[in-house]
Amino acid sequence: MRHSIVVVVPMGDPAGVGPEVVLKALAHGDLVGKATIIVVGDKQLFEKTAIDCALSCSFDAYVEHDSALAEVLERQIDSVFYHLPLVDLASFSYGKVNAMCGNAAYQAIVKSVDLIRSGYADAMATTPINKEALRAAMIAAIGHTEILAELTETEDPVTMFQTFGLKVFFMTRHMSLRAACDAVTYENVLHFIRLCHRISQSKAFDASKPLVVAGLNPHCGEHGLFGDEEVKAVIPAVEQARREGIDVVGPVGADSVFHQAKIGTYRAVLSLYHDQGHIATKTLDFERTVSVTWDLPFLRTSVDHGTAFDIAGKGIASSIGMTEALLVAYRHVYSQKGGLE
Amino acid sequence: MRHSIVVVVPMGDPAGVGPEVVLKALAHGDLVGKATIIVVGDKQLFEKTAIDCALSCSFDAYVEHDSALAEVLERQIDSVFYHLPLVDLASFSYGKVNAMCGNAAYQAIVKSVDLIRSGYADAMATTPINKEALRAAMIAAIGHTEILAELTETEDPVTMFQTFGLKVFFMTRHMSLRAACDAVTYENVLHFIRLCHRISQSKAFDASKPLVVAGLNPHCGEHGLFGDEEVKAVIPAVEQARREGIDVVGPVGADSVFHQAKIGTYRAVLSLYHDQGHIATKTLDFERTVSVTWDLPFLRTSVDHGTAFDIAGKGIASSIGMTEALLVAYRHVYSQKGGLE
Repeated sequence: MRHSIVVVVPMGDPAGVGPEVVLKALAHGDLVGKATIIVVGDKQLFEKTAIDCALSCSFDAYVEHDSALAEVLERQIDSVFYHLPLVDLASFSYGKVNAMCGNAAYQAIVKSVDLIRSGYADAMATTPINKEALRAAMIAAIGHTEILAELTETEDPVTMFQTFGLKVFFMTRHMSLRAACDAVTYENVLHFIRLCHRISQSKAFDASKPLVVAGLNPHCGEHGLFGDEEVKAVIPAVEQARREGIDVVGPVGADSVFHQAKIGTYRAVLSLYHDQGHIATKTLDFERTVSVTWDLPFLRTSVDHGTAFDIAGKGIASSIGMTEALLVAYRHVYSQKGGLE
Repeated sequence: MRHSIVVVVPMGDPAGVGPEVVLKALAHGDLVGKATIIVVGDKQLFEKTAIDCALSCSFDAYVEHDSALAEVLERQIDSVFYHLPLVDLASFSYGKVNAMCGNAAYQAIVKSVDLIRSGYADAMATTPINKEALRAAMIAAIGHTEILAELTETEDPVTMFQTFGLKVFFMTRHMSLRAACDAVTYENVLHFIRLCHRISQSKAFDASKPLVVAGLNPHCGEHGLFGDEEVKAVIPAVEQARREGIDVVGPVGADSVFHQAKIGTYRAVLSLYHDQGHIATKTLDFERTVSVTWDLPFLRTSVDHGTAFDIAGKGIASSIGMTEALLVAYRHVYSQKGGLE
């Protein structure tokens, strides 16, 4: 009997810590007996990484074609390596920006999307890629989210951070704090409340609890005493959303809303700017903060660290983030398939 | 032989949870055998609170005059109650704004300052007071920090938040987020770096580690790509401070600086706006976040919750914050006196 949940993992930039953390996370074995992990990458590169990092590289099966994959997936196996000849070890070295590696990382993602599209996998857990290596390989997209959006023709994937039970959406991300203040308009807040509401209909969320919007100003501005975005934009947007039948509350002061969400008061928090949600999740547990991308045709989780070129190939990278990204992907798919978490 | 460290605790607003959390924290007994706690308040009120909350109210000594206090402090006692006839129980009720209670809270603070000034105590740990009750009692100052500044003729007391080992200073607090962005100037940042540097010469800090300034924009603005306050103000201020011999680094992205400080990389973090530091400390551990006030003639710690009028007198208030405020006061004084923490 096959495992009902399959997670595919593109190897990431071969010159970074991606392959190492994948091997370590698999050795950790949290999903053994529960799910099949397909790793898409170059077999020789993984064997070299295993030797250099003093790790074992043992997969239950190795395949090079979809037909072989289909066959092994019929068995209840924990891990499959899908080999693509992407890396020429003669011109490879750890920690270097390299067009070959940028291209290899990209091709592994393309194949992983393809496997999901063909029904071989349910979700994807990604490992770090390198912007400069992608550029060297003439790949225009600057990160996973952009690559995946392009490959799946998705307009607006939505990023959520998750640390333990705390789930945080972001209204704005990579813009100045002043621009983020400007973006707190009635229309924007209402749009994002509707978006988060729709996404959080997934069974991965506790629908019995309300969504909450964080305040922008200290203590939500104390009724306009310092800052009026709450009075002018957030409160009217929350009220309108409630009239539309959305179970949302707020604004709640940012100094307590994440604590409240952490102890289970809310379904998820809509944070209004990048650092608001990032400080909360990453201070709580830096390594266990996992990024989840919604609104792609499939669920994608990701480690929240980079390629760490400075320590690649040394065997010292922590795999806590990768382990957590796999677990979160598994749990979300499990919930969506109707399991009880 | 007397205890070498004495912490004084003004009772707070009698109608709030202050007396209850003090009794609970004392019963918890973390400082038994290590320090003397002097509680300044009304004995009848504490006895009533103990009965209503099903707690014991047993102090090692009760005094009503300084001379009696001086005498009992010669012995190694853990707790002394300094009685002031402040509360008329006939006109008292829990959870109500009451001029008598506002005045009682204020008088307990005045007496506590007086005991420190006379050399009876080293530090103060405060319990919640109520702004409206103070106003009803015709007391102009709006909070502890303002009252203590006035009583001790201190111009600019400095607030620091502490959760476990994480110590966070604030460049700005109760102003809008936009105003906080405006306040990120070269002069302001440099002034606060110097201030935090001077304060962190106290032995309560690990001088072998650098101070760090948090960034304002996501990823510190990525070299001006989104937000230029780092380039224009923070970096030049850090460089100038370093030329002055101050061990300070930064800006470091707010999404990682608090995690780094938590694991011991930095002496303390200078956060640039209220929620930046509040989200970090309070999400980490809401109840164990203690406020520490520096630059008064003595050290003061405080619980970070309010009077919680809605649950006063019911025996259900958590005393974790009060316990932590006492412990932090004790540890700081211990370090300052040359003990090893």
